[in-house]
Amino acid sequence: MSLSPPNRPRENRPRAEIASGTTSPSRGAATRMTANVSIAGYLIQRLRDYGVDDLFGIPGDYVLSFYSELERSPINVIGCTREDCAGFAADAYARIRGMGAVCVTYCVGGLSVCNSIAGAYAEKSPVVVISGAPGLNERATGALLHHMVRDFRTQLDVFEKFTIATAELTDPLTAFSEIDRVLDACDQYKRPVYIELPRDMVAVVPPVAHGYRGFVREIDANATAEAVRETYQRLSEAKNPVILAGVEMHRFRLQDELLQLAESANIPIATTMLGKSVVSERHPLFIGLYEGAIGDSQVTRIVEQSDLVLLMGAFLSDINLGIYTAKLDPNRCVYATSESLRISYHHYHNVDLKSFLVGLNESATALPKRPFTPIEGLHAAALAPDLGANEFLRTSWMISELNKRLDADTIVIADVGDALFAATELTIHERTEFLSPAYYTSMGFSIPAALGAATARKDHRIVVLVGDGAFQMTGQELSTLIRQGHSPVVILLDNHGYGTERYLHQGDWRYNEIASWDYGELMQVYGHGVAHRVRTKAEYIAALDAAWDQPNEPHLIHATLEESDASETLKKLAQRMCERV
Amino acid sequence: MSLSPPNRPRENRPRAEIASGTTSPSRGAATRMTANVSIAGYLIQRLRDYGVDDLFGIPGDYVLSFYSELERSPINVIGCTREDCAGFAADAYARIRGMGAVCVTYCVGGLSVCNSIAGAYAEKSPVVVISGAPGLNERATGALLHHMVRDFRTQLDVFEKFTIATAELTDPLTAFSEIDRVLDACDQYKRPVYIELPRDMVAVVPPVAHGYRGFVREIDANATAEAVRETYQRLSEAKNPVILAGVEMHRFRLQDELLQLAESANIPIATTMLGKSVVSERHPLFIGLYEGAIGDSQVTRIVEQSDLVLLMGAFLSDINLGIYTAKLDPNRCVYATSESLRISYHHYHNVDLKSFLVGLNESATALPKRPFTPIEGLHAAALAPDLGANEFLRTSWMISELNKRLDADTIVIADVGDALFAATELTIHERTEFLSPAYYTSMGFSIPAALGAATARKDHRIVVLVGDGAFQMTGQELSTLIRQGHSPVVILLDNHGYGTERYLHQGDWRYNEIASWDYGELMQVYGHGVAHRVRTKAEYIAALDAAWDQPNEPHLIHATLEESDASETLKKLAQRMCERV
Repeated sequence: MSLSPPNRPRENRPRAEIASGTTSPSRGAATRMTANVSIAGYLIQRLRDYGVDDLFGIPGDYVLSFYSELERSPINVIGCTREDCAGFAADAYARIRGMGAVCVTYCVGGLSVCNSIAGAYAEKSPVVVISGAPGLNERATGALLHHMVRDFRTQLDVFEKFTIATAELTDPLTAFSEIDRVLDACDQYKRPVYIELPRDMVAVVPPVAHGYRGFVREIDANATAEAVRETYQRLSEAKNPVILAGVEMHRFRLQDELLQLAESANIPIATTMLGKSVVSERHPLFIGLYEGAIGDSQVTRIVEQSDLVLLMGAFLSDINLGIYTAKLDPNRCVYATSESLRISYHHYHNVDLKSFLVGLNESATALPKRPFTPIEGLHAAALAPDLGANEFLRTSWMISELNKRLDADTIVIADVGDALFAATELTIHERTEFLSPAYYTSMGFSIPAALGAATARKDHRIVVLVGDGAFQMTGQELSTLIRQGHSPVVILLDNHGYGTERYLHQGDWRYNEIASWDYGELMQVYGHGVAHRVRTKAEYIAALDAAWDQPNEPHLIHATLEESDASETLKKLAQRMCERV
Repeated sequence: MSLSPPNRPRENRPRAEIASGTTSPSRGAATRMTANVSIAGYLIQRLRDYGVDDLFGIPGDYVLSFYSELERSPINVIGCTREDCAGFAADAYARIRGMGAVCVTYCVGGLSVCNSIAGAYAEKSPVVVISGAPGLNERATGALLHHMVRDFRTQLDVFEKFTIATAELTDPLTAFSEIDRVLDACDQYKRPVYIELPRDMVAVVPPVAHGYRGFVREIDANATAEAVRETYQRLSEAKNPVILAGVEMHRFRLQDELLQLAESANIPIATTMLGKSVVSERHPLFIGLYEGAIGDSQVTRIVEQSDLVLLMGAFLSDINLGIYTAKLDPNRCVYATSESLRISYHHYHNVDLKSFLVGLNESATALPKRPFTPIEGLHAAALAPDLGANEFLRTSWMISELNKRLDADTIVIADVGDALFAATELTIHERTEFLSPAYYTSMGFSIPAALGAATARKDHRIVVLVGDGAFQMTGQELSTLIRQGHSPVVILLDNHGYGTERYLHQGDWRYNEIASWDYGELMQVYGHGVAHRVRTKAEYIAALDAAWDQPNEPHLIHATLEESDASETLKKLAQRMCERV
């Protein structure tokens, strides 16, 4: 039996499992025969088991044989302009689909994705990095091989710093189990992993029978049960509990369990910035983003005056918590993540996040349903004041105007800087439809991420909010979006430089200025798409109208802003941060 | 005494030292007082001691304070579009000036330069990486700081893999000596180094007096003397010795010593591909590039039939030596680099390359001067056959046409692929005027490197040879060249994809295709410059004429080639490599 029949229809794969929130491979994988299956063939099949239908990257000579195997396989290979862009695209794909993959050549390729993979590590995105490498039979000659840095371990050593598992597929006897181990880790920990495939191992058929054995994680059932009992006890005594939901609810597909908990007792839900859109922001229990002193004051009051804050899968990072302005007394907190569980000042070890939530839900049915009173004017803050006819465009107002057009078929991707801070004011309709690098905050994430998102959800419209500095870093990936037939709407907020830094570090510094580009002309370079240059309210509305009237065209809306333009969130953030910069 | 008086005229610095081939700091540094000098101030002054007048990078919040110190200093800060481009620019600057520097923020910046710095390590380019970092006073809170990957050591751990020395400037008592140690290593070993500067250490004035003590390298005078004697003995007995010069002759500024040796006994000089232009290719003793079976057959014959090959500062790497086709019998070789010295099958340790060359020159005056007979038709091979009027452009012919226009004021930078292989046929007039990543072969090197070269040699014209795939990776740095007022000539060889890979791995693979761009339109995006689209001989000649007639304008010559176009070098290389791919 061949593992990668070239014409195997895509519909036959167990997609329902993926959609329902688990990326665990089908049981079929466990009993699959591996006779006559090459190392490349097994890797490709196991990626497909996890729903990896598309892969991003750039070929190079140490990985050409594997690329040829990919091209013969049902996996759709999407060539990018740069490797780091491929990494961002795979990251966004992984956030939406549960696993993503990037495939590059040795060192010149692999070392070019360090930053995107480090970002995926920091923000828990399950990305598989596959790198070609010199063949084992080439290594003994003593001559330096091209692309080599120091020795043959250099790249692997580097990737061990920001992946959760690595494997060198140098031994046919262990290659299949190594692939299993590493992909399991990617799926279980939602962190990147690294697989190095020497080019002379691609076609090797291991002389062993192999079946996937599955992954068993060490879980302490007694600790879990006690943690559930204690949390339930606190919940039943709490007068005004609140849930603070983080991005792990999305990564581990626990949104249903989370909503069940919230609905069981009408507990309001706030999210962190990175967790924005883990629940639909139209859900009646959703109250907004909690960002300490820099966020919406009503949300801050509700969270900080609560007598029981259930932090569910949230990262306690600086920007995520309003630059240390969050006031969360541990005495009143249950802090549960995939890695640790703390109640007040004591810890439970080896508690699985999902089991904890499921256990809570089983208990919570006994909770009396609290009365639910919607909070007056809660989401009104998102609406920026209208703009005068002759005023320059302002980011906040542009966001509120965009907000009117969002629907359940839109995915919004925000780059860093005010593109992100202002975008926190958007109301997201469905889950996981807002993507941003809100913790790692790597500039240039958004355009390549749009390629990943458009590939992962071909039926959704992608809207990108990006500053000029970030666009200059990776904007060329727009050409790949166009080449692949996608029709994103790119809203480019041009304030002529690194606007956030102007706020963070006062002074008229030249280093914050960047080159002026006529961005719209890029559509001429890329050969397709509609460009809009907007300076006024009417021009911006007309551009949005055109973008929504022509949903099958890519649109680039180049909005000229004043250098001093900033959202309220950025202004408050800058006040806090500039003490440290 | 302030170390960085803002108006200190640039002419006052000891530039003669740099121009004459040593980058060792002036003795003045040893006695300089450091009272009231901050850590940032000392770092800036020490960089200037080594001739770093310009620095490349992108600011970010963890490095803004240091950026402000740079902007107040005489160092010219050049903002790039991307960090990896800044790394390539600093690399090219370092190759020309003896040291270069790139300054970035923590992780999102630092981890974005991994590939360019790994390339500088592999090809021995002395680049100083300066990264901002979270302040020491921020690290104790336990909260995750933005841009952080795993822990505060992650980035330093990564850079230890491809730098020769690293320092975290966390202790005021040792900060100055750490800066000295790391910059010394950069200068002595011609490899990149890494300096991490927490943002709350920038303005700290160490409470210690400090003077630069200089660097003492362990050298074995007896081993050096014996190696010189043995080499001289072999040289005096040799009938047809030849020098194979590598890139270290340039890095360590030993070209004068090398030429003296060659001229003392009329020894012909070949160079490796990476070493191209370490001597003027118009020198009568220069015979061409040695690339084993894939190179010029006359050069191959001369080198391989020689009874004594003096390999001077050459890397024995695969592409550099014609993919293992080089036939160099160690019995007949003296192989001297900055790191090791081997004669036949025995080794000398701790022999300084310069001392070895100087010692040889002192002995060699006694050598009888061999008769010098120029080799008939040696450089004729560089002239490609003329193109018919209706033929598509061919890379080889384009190179030979360009060759006619090169002069001593031109620096040629070749990207990888056929841009590099074909460019080996150019005749370089002066030293160090050909830059390429011929060993590490990282795509996208050339345009950012042009920025570094143009900054380092403002009076030279920069000519870039770049393929379409490489241009899509980093082409946006052309906007920085334009913004800085430079006027490069970019010859973009557009064969609609990764042309070299088409030759390396046979088959009609889709993954080698890339997006079609109308590259000339980029001059509209960047707001300045002349674009030429050429398909024929006449159009190409007209474009070159225009570029040379308007030397103060940037020119982009977009040459459409057939997909199958390839230089003879690439074809021969592909025959050798495809067995392994």
